[in-house]
Amino acid sequence: MTKAPETIAFTDGRLVLIDQTRLPGELVTLECNTVEQTHDAIRRLVVRGAPAIGIAAAYGVLLARPSDAIGPDREVYLRAIDFLATSRPTAVNLFWALDRMKSVIERTPDVQLHDALLVEAVTIHNEDRQMCQSIGRHGASLLGDCRSVLTHCNAGGLATSMWGTALAPIYQLHQSGHEIKVFADETRPLLQGARLTAWELSQAGIPVTVLTDSMAGSLLRTGTIDAVIVGADRIAANGDVANKIGTYPLAVLASYHRIPFYVAAPSSTFDLALQCGDLIPIEQRDRSEVAQPQGIRVVPDLAEVINPAFDITPAELVTAIITERGVIESPNCERIARHLDGR
Amino acid sequence: MTKAPETIAFTDGRLVLIDQTRLPGELVTLECNTVEQTHDAIRRLVVRGAPAIGIAAAYGVLLARPSDAIGPDREVYLRAIDFLATSRPTAVNLFWALDRMKSVIERTPDVQLHDALLVEAVTIHNEDRQMCQSIGRHGASLLGDCRSVLTHCNAGGLATSMWGTALAPIYQLHQSGHEIKVFADETRPLLQGARLTAWELSQAGIPVTVLTDSMAGSLLRTGTIDAVIVGADRIAANGDVANKIGTYPLAVLASYHRIPFYVAAPSSTFDLALQCGDLIPIEQRDRSEVAQPQGIRVVPDLAEVINPAFDITPAELVTAIITERGVIESPNCERIARHLDGR
Repeated sequence: MTKAPETIAFTDGRLVLIDQTRLPGELVTLECNTVEQTHDAIRRLVVRGAPAIGIAAAYGVLLARPSDAIGPDREVYLRAIDFLATSRPTAVNLFWALDRMKSVIERTPDVQLHDALLVEAVTIHNEDRQMCQSIGRHGASLLGDCRSVLTHCNAGGLATSMWGTALAPIYQLHQSGHEIKVFADETRPLLQGARLTAWELSQAGIPVTVLTDSMAGSLLRTGTIDAVIVGADRIAANGDVANKIGTYPLAVLASYHRIPFYVAAPSSTFDLALQCGDLIPIEQRDRSEVAQPQGIRVVPDLAEVINPAFDITPAELVTAIITERGVIESPNCERIARHLDGR
Repeated sequence: MTKAPETIAFTDGRLVLIDQTRLPGELVTLECNTVEQTHDAIRRLVVRGAPAIGIAAAYGVLLARPSDAIGPDREVYLRAIDFLATSRPTAVNLFWALDRMKSVIERTPDVQLHDALLVEAVTIHNEDRQMCQSIGRHGASLLGDCRSVLTHCNAGGLATSMWGTALAPIYQLHQSGHEIKVFADETRPLLQGARLTAWELSQAGIPVTVLTDSMAGSLLRTGTIDAVIVGADRIAANGDVANKIGTYPLAVLASYHRIPFYVAAPSSTFDLALQCGDLIPIEQRDRSEVAQPQGIRVVPDLAEVINPAFDITPAELVTAIITERGVIESPNCERIARHLDGR
């Protein structure tokens, strides 16, 4: 039996990604040999999930090649960073990882540049694995009494390098013998819940049930769900959360039914430069994702379509944010600043 | 230019239906010559929408043929009624229409039976047209200040014989020169909003924008929507509403944002025998509708799937119910009983 590929691997100078656009039908990898291929893979969601995008972009910088083929230099790396930063706008982890790579360029002599960048990318990758385990541990103590959890989109191993963020506490609980069942919103338009969350949880032997996004309300109303847990693409200084479109209505429903609503994300997801969620740029994606699911036209051409990829959940609807450092209950500016102090 | 076919027509002893499973790709009709074909057309959603199901079933009774091919008789019609009643469980209009046909059988001599049943089916059909216009008139006065309305599923001309229920006030306003824009939830799993509502409104020249069900929360949060209006498949004595899955979360979101939430339905949609919504039977449909949209597998086989076709919205979340008789504000048992008195 061959070992399943990792979400992201950097081997022999190539970036190898599970092609998440092909799951669950096929488990295949895509190889990126250039910055352009990496940019395209992020844009097309071959690799997605805020932490995973950051890691992939960090490795992507290393694929920069100078036009004269002599060897990458400072300018070429910086251009690669600027280009990769245009791949997607909302997940702040992308910019956070690229900023770390840029800092390395600023402080490293030319001759050591390649090695220093490689070390930094590997460090970002390793920190992400640690982060998953820590979030798993902190989240498991919050979810310890839950039998049944609802999640949205995919904030699991396919969105990071290991256990994920929102799914990390579930893997942790499962590993320690706690019986927990997951309800996964399918997450239109791109069905990351159906295709990715259901796939990775069922591969791990964790019971998972898929529902359309419109069915979550009924489950919450009938008491089927003990807690809701999601990831985040960016969190503002006041605790407002940008996450996959459909997160906000879940937060309203959870609040209405007095069910805890948790957000799990590494501290790199906070953007303290933005005071509130409405300042977070929201990616608008192509009409075809809504109008032509699986390539078949379902919306008449005369009708308009909207396709925002994310929405904003105000902090007051968030019961707690779980990071690799611990838990921020009832998040607000002050509690977040204190939690991140010394980051 | 040929005239567009009607949603339901009964011509030369055949029931002719727009095949709604083929829209918006193709506008084609399906002919039913037997009770079995009618049952199948209702079950497969060739014809759907609570009022339309009732009308189709009433005509379907007329397609009953005795096994000895001599001519339909009382028993054959009654068997047809019992069989058609098994086609779908939630929309009460189906049973209401079949009960009217049964009453005709009970009070009519053998020799006049066929004609009496035909008259009754045509009467049900004509009453439905009147109902659409009346709901349009009553609803237009409620929506008169709205520029932008959100709807879910299809409660339009394709769900009835003419203007529909939830869409009737919109057609009425459009006809009287009022500028109104419709946001249509796509309505997974079967995309009646994208395929049918967007199609019929854009055919009528009414601006319509399609969104995934998960995007409605953001539109309500940002003040884009002035009112939500939906149809109903059954309304209990206390005003609890069974409607397409995804209606309940919209009602919670509308309430949270203090936006009016209207339900438009003929008085035949009330089931006074049921005290509250949790007594309404909810149809559970096939796994494949969720797991294989457009025939392509998106849910791994190891994952479970749920597929309830309807949910229950408690009366306290309903701003008003609009029927052909007028408007029931803040519906409850007493107000509903008074409204329907003399039905």
